[in-house]
Amino acid sequence: MVNNPDTPLLDTVDTPDDLRKLKPEQLRQLSDELRAEMIDAVSTSGGHLGSGLGVVELTVAIHYIFNTPDDKLIWDVGHQCYPHKILTGRRERIRTLRQGGGLSGFTKRSESEYDPFGAAHSSTSISAGLGFAVANKLNDHPGKAIAVIGDGAMSAGMAYEAMNNAEQAGDRLVVILNDNDMSIAPPVGGLSAYLARMVSSSEYMGLRKLASKAAKKLSRRVWSGLEKAEEYARGMATGGTLFEELGFYYVGPIDGHNLDHLIPVLENVRDSKKGPILVHVVTTKGKGYEPAENSADKYHGVPKFDVVTGEKAKSKAGPPAYQNVFGDTLAKLAETDKRICAITAAMPSGTGVDRFAQAHPERAFDVGIAEQHGVTFAAGLAAQGMRPFAAIYSTFLQRAYDQVVHDVAIQNLPVRFAIDRAGLVGADGATHAGSFDITYLATLPNFVVMAAGDEAELVHMTYTAAEYDDGPIALRYPRGNGVGVELPETPQKLEIGKGRVVKEGNKVAILSLGARLEEARKAADQLEAKGLSTTVADLRFAKPLDTDLIDRLMKTHEVVVTVEEGSIGGLGAHVLTHASDNGLLDGGLKIRTMRLPDVFQDQDAPEKQYDEAGLNAPQIVETVLKALRHNSAGVEEARA
Amino acid sequence: MVNNPDTPLLDTVDTPDDLRKLKPEQLRQLSDELRAEMIDAVSTSGGHLGSGLGVVELTVAIHYIFNTPDDKLIWDVGHQCYPHKILTGRRERIRTLRQGGGLSGFTKRSESEYDPFGAAHSSTSISAGLGFAVANKLNDHPGKAIAVIGDGAMSAGMAYEAMNNAEQAGDRLVVILNDNDMSIAPPVGGLSAYLARMVSSSEYMGLRKLASKAAKKLSRRVWSGLEKAEEYARGMATGGTLFEELGFYYVGPIDGHNLDHLIPVLENVRDSKKGPILVHVVTTKGKGYEPAENSADKYHGVPKFDVVTGEKAKSKAGPPAYQNVFGDTLAKLAETDKRICAITAAMPSGTGVDRFAQAHPERAFDVGIAEQHGVTFAAGLAAQGMRPFAAIYSTFLQRAYDQVVHDVAIQNLPVRFAIDRAGLVGADGATHAGSFDITYLATLPNFVVMAAGDEAELVHMTYTAAEYDDGPIALRYPRGNGVGVELPETPQKLEIGKGRVVKEGNKVAILSLGARLEEARKAADQLEAKGLSTTVADLRFAKPLDTDLIDRLMKTHEVVVTVEEGSIGGLGAHVLTHASDNGLLDGGLKIRTMRLPDVFQDQDAPEKQYDEAGLNAPQIVETVLKALRHNSAGVEEARA
Repeated sequence: MVNNPDTPLLDTVDTPDDLRKLKPEQLRQLSDELRAEMIDAVSTSGGHLGSGLGVVELTVAIHYIFNTPDDKLIWDVGHQCYPHKILTGRRERIRTLRQGGGLSGFTKRSESEYDPFGAAHSSTSISAGLGFAVANKLNDHPGKAIAVIGDGAMSAGMAYEAMNNAEQAGDRLVVILNDNDMSIAPPVGGLSAYLARMVSSSEYMGLRKLASKAAKKLSRRVWSGLEKAEEYARGMATGGTLFEELGFYYVGPIDGHNLDHLIPVLENVRDSKKGPILVHVVTTKGKGYEPAENSADKYHGVPKFDVVTGEKAKSKAGPPAYQNVFGDTLAKLAETDKRICAITAAMPSGTGVDRFAQAHPERAFDVGIAEQHGVTFAAGLAAQGMRPFAAIYSTFLQRAYDQVVHDVAIQNLPVRFAIDRAGLVGADGATHAGSFDITYLATLPNFVVMAAGDEAELVHMTYTAAEYDDGPIALRYPRGNGVGVELPETPQKLEIGKGRVVKEGNKVAILSLGARLEEARKAADQLEAKGLSTTVADLRFAKPLDTDLIDRLMKTHEVVVTVEEGSIGGLGAHVLTHASDNGLLDGGLKIRTMRLPDVFQDQDAPEKQYDEAGLNAPQIVETVLKALRHNSAGVEEARA
Repeated sequence: MVNNPDTPLLDTVDTPDDLRKLKPEQLRQLSDELRAEMIDAVSTSGGHLGSGLGVVELTVAIHYIFNTPDDKLIWDVGHQCYPHKILTGRRERIRTLRQGGGLSGFTKRSESEYDPFGAAHSSTSISAGLGFAVANKLNDHPGKAIAVIGDGAMSAGMAYEAMNNAEQAGDRLVVILNDNDMSIAPPVGGLSAYLARMVSSSEYMGLRKLASKAAKKLSRRVWSGLEKAEEYARGMATGGTLFEELGFYYVGPIDGHNLDHLIPVLENVRDSKKGPILVHVVTTKGKGYEPAENSADKYHGVPKFDVVTGEKAKSKAGPPAYQNVFGDTLAKLAETDKRICAITAAMPSGTGVDRFAQAHPERAFDVGIAEQHGVTFAAGLAAQGMRPFAAIYSTFLQRAYDQVVHDVAIQNLPVRFAIDRAGLVGADGATHAGSFDITYLATLPNFVVMAAGDEAELVHMTYTAAEYDDGPIALRYPRGNGVGVELPETPQKLEIGKGRVVKEGNKVAILSLGARLEEARKAADQLEAKGLSTTVADLRFAKPLDTDLIDRLMKTHEVVVTVEEGSIGGLGAHVLTHASDNGLLDGGLKIRTMRLPDVFQDQDAPEKQYDEAGLNAPQIVETVLKALRHNSAGVEEARA
């Protein structure tokens, strides 16, 4: 660890037990060292920076006051947990964040007893915390649950459902609202406006100064019981009614970077017999690192960067990212088609909707972290004649599955689903993988499910979806950059349920769906080199299947292999079901389906993940060869 | 229509246009006739009664004041829409409710232009209404959206997400909160307590009388602009802050059975330039029908009944309902196993959790209409060593799919999913069918998925799930009564991933999963009668598959047929995938998968639905015979 920052105090802290031996007046220095260490670590690994910087003092204060890991600290989303990881025995590995074999970029149960509940998707912490609190209550076991949740995450309905149920936890549940007026992008909606009003009010601003003075005069010993904290914290409050109406005891707003405020308030919260308590803490995302504080996204997620200048490592120039191809295509189509709308759930840049919004702000809708609402809102737009595109990552669309079924599919409404991050996603790992959407969408009546083989196909599919008014239609495409094919000047309207043959052969047929197409081509080249004539078809549609093409290839080839970036139940299952339904297997056919394995794969470089998944060209070749070696009695023959 | 109530005024009203020709003072009589007609209709058809009775006046008032169908009236859930159906051209068919070929028990787009957005699942109306409102705004098209949503439905996060986004609709969105302090069971949680405080406060109670007097003195013409309605309605208000913090203009509470209150308030709401507006209307579920008002569930859902006495038609004595077998078994297991908990999302009696709760109230949790929270709450309980059963209908579990994936499956936490209403469900139709759970759960790593072949199997599976601590496990079972097998005294712990052979043969093998088992047996008998020796296996597990058993049967039988009460991607897909992966199809095997068809099926008697689906014994037989006729070249031979 060359050039690491000088951290004499942090070097004495391996676990929260060590931390709790420090004197309160040492915590400022510890926090500064922790911040420096984290900045340095992320500068070498890349990752989520701004959120962690915002909670350095909060992390220190919580572990200092609460008895972790017996008290259960649950970080919502978990991308702000790097300081927490450093303080809980994982400092040695902190520079392996988000890398293959390294630390996860989120909290993870298997990593540490200090991570009682893993996360990565937003807004789960209060529900989970309530589970811990109630279990402890039932078993008369000591221990509280502390859920730390951002204001952006509060826009998700799940957080509200949990708050609505929190009263039963009594004093065993503490919710810390980390209010930085940001999620990834600035948050939207009524709740956000409400919090902003509270924090910006003159009462709060004035009282903040007053409280700051008062806190300096009062030693920690003066505080006793929540009644005192109440004078302090609630005196500052300008609101909190919304939370109190839901049954919480509201404390705040508190300056989340001032340890002289945080420590006594959390101490009193810990000792209070009242509850559940919501502590409203105001923080600054990117705090303490000037380049982050000054940037629009507060260095939410960053590549490697130079600590001194803040300059980020440039990504290699290359083909455009799929999300941008989508956003640009849709923006262009919307110039002449006034019915096109785009909806994102708090991911404007991740989905490319930001590009659409620049051109058509009135038809771009960021609904916040609210996929359920976003999908049914899109269904309402469609029912009134608009052409809405719900641009949602595959993994997050799971949040809206019932809305997809009940509001869109059953009513056969033409909502377009632009499903980004389909397949494996690299550094974000299992929680962000888009593994299941082919399966969970293609099982639904009325649905059309497409997957783009490359970025030019994505252009065509975006246009095809825009023009398709007969019912729901989904187009899926991977994370990252395209393969470098030329983008079409004029998008082409694809025939629904028709694939294309990209290479014609006569012994082996590879039926590809989606972005494994390149690997399928490579595999075909390798097979041809072995003298095996190979067809490669890009099926384009998981539903409806191109049964004419499939039937023809099955009847004229010796081995048929399906390849998809999805789990069991998707393309392979649909092809097999079609074939068995129609007796195409009765006479024997060497058919194999290649798909994601039946495990949740950890983070790694995407190509390594696909290697682990067995979906790269060499593995396609091996599958074909193995099938060819299999004799008709179903026994593998000896290798030649 | 013999014995129908005398309804001279209602007889003149076929559509809302007719209604709007009436004088305000006629609306009381119309409402009374509408109520009588509805009671009579449901007494002959069965269905949802209490909710409709509670909104008779509201239905009349909305159609009277708003310009439906150009103004879009969206009933949340939709089970309260019978009066609405009667007033919107469907009176002739009202006695066909919930029957095959008859009217749906919910709103449905294909039924009427007055149903702009269908429903059945809760809490979608505000999101959909927002879609209509925004579409109209973008197109400069006149027309408002009116969402009517119950207080119970407000506990779902989706409603909150929508409210959080509502501000952009401006005056085009009106949300009517129908507050009857009931969903199906009494509602739970902080919001419910909040509403109760508002409505029960002395200010409201006192002002209600005052307002009533005032309303009598004032003619409708006196009211102009919302400023007037404000004096009237907001003067009565004791709260509403929660809604105002989210950006709504709050009006209420209003007596929802008093047309002299409803009409002027809604008129002013309609003409207001402020918005979005939330009108808080207080109603009584079951209003105007004494037996309903006096019953605990307010006749939420009823069989046919006697209008005069209120006496309900007794259901035939028969085997116990699956839900009760589950609830009783779990309650018994929990006597000795203190870790067992049960969670329901507002369906205590529908899931049998009420029986568990009677025995173990401290370990039964009704989270309200909040499946997302319920599942992650269960995950938290499991992470802290409890053995939680999340008892949720198949169709409603879709609401929590991401929580199932992200909080349960990825973390491999032993949450038990008791999935009721698996398969087709009869009168509730497509929106309540449990068609997709095998597919969407069995695709997930770490998951065990079971389906009960009969009620004795359900006992064993409940016990098996309780004892299984290695990860998530689901047991699915149908709506309705068991088949009449004897219930075991002592539940048996099933070996994970092992099926059973219930009948051994050697030519045809039927692989059954779940409650089609009886039909599979019948089919086997019919095949045997034709001289075809038939094996029937109850696979019990969709995941992990009993591959030993399947391999053996595939190798020793000429035709293999899978049968399941689920859509494509489930058992059949997993069996086919296993077989093709392992080369079991290479030499030819007549394998067919029988499953739910690729359509959303309308309501009907369950046995008729299964006939339509092609999953009854005669169709299993026909599938086998057709496969046998198929020659090895894949061509069907002429019938013998």
